[in-house]
Amino acid sequence: MDSRFEEKEFVACCGSIKFAQQLAAAAGGSDNLEELVETARDIWFNKVDVNGWLEAFAAHPQIGQTSSPNTNTETSAQWSKGEQSTALATSTHSTLQELFDWNAQYRQKFGFVFLICASGRTTPEILSELKMRYSNRPIVELEIAAQEQMKITELRLAKLFAIKTTSKINNEI
Amino acid sequence: MDSRFEEKEFVACCGSIKFAQQLAAAAGGSDNLEELVETARDIWFNKVDVNGWLEAFAAHPQIGQTSSPNTNTETSAQWSKGEQSTALATSTHSTLQELFDWNAQYRQKFGFVFLICASGRTTPEILSELKMRYSNRPIVELEIAAQEQMKITELRLAKLFAIKTTSKINNEI
Repeated sequence: MDSRFEEKEFVACCGSIKFAQQLAAAAGGSDNLEELVETARDIWFNKVDVNGWLEAFAAHPQIGQTSSPNTNTETSAQWSKGEQSTALATSTHSTLQELFDWNAQYRQKFGFVFLICASGRTTPEILSELKMRYSNRPIVELEIAAQEQMKITELRLAKLFAIKTTSKINNEI
Repeated sequence: MDSRFEEKEFVACCGSIKFAQQLAAAAGGSDNLEELVETARDIWFNKVDVNGWLEAFAAHPQIGQTSSPNTNTETSAQWSKGEQSTALATSTHSTLQELFDWNAQYRQKFGFVFLICASGRTTPEILSELKMRYSNRPIVELEIAAQEQMKITELRLAKLFAIKTTSKINNEI
């Protein structure tokens, strides 16, 4: 299969190296978004182990911020900023402070950053979700976080796919 | 509450430091085994995060062996040997080799050692359980491993409790 996508582009979609390597090997040449996403879901939920999940979570900035010490690519940082644009536009000094405090409490309980597919969600919505999820058992919350990570990955794969398709059309004109 | 149990004694029962600290704080003076186990279950399943679970798993030797580079106490290593006595008595060179190979495969897929409450179980039983569990999704297997860890912890808490009770009686005679 020709390689349309590089492993490092998949790392920008989901920061687990195992995920990116396996996706590049299985669907690096795919020209079908649906198939690409299907393969990505199978790898993420069935093949990546808990260490890979934690590695991917660690690549995200804390919600309300736009960069993380572990954000592994520039693309990932830019996408994160875009995904949080509604939240940032609807935040005030006091809601941001509340988000910051709850984030710290969340990380203290669960050992990883609070993860939510923020696209189109306001800061009050995100805060209320965080407070609700805080009462979960750690194993339950781990699985929810992995599902949120997959939603983020799907949005990013779609963006990556669109970029590749546009550049292919431009090259052919 | 008087301290009957020390934190390091709880570490020998379950290698998560967070678990041992919280149990010592909540029930270090308990003279009721049922209450001690109940508190331990609550801490393990509701309060220890996934990093603590992985830390506890890492303190176990691979099944079929009796020491781990991470086994954090001498007591833990001795208990592990006792728990595996049936397995060791029922193993042959070839089943031990098979166990070794499947363990390696398991660790490769899940990122942690295969954990089973081996007490009273033969090597063929353990092998068949390992092969069955190998097909699980990583998140499912993580929760099963945590349940097995809790069974081991309960047996060890009961042993610890018995030792303390005997020594108290001896001191009083």
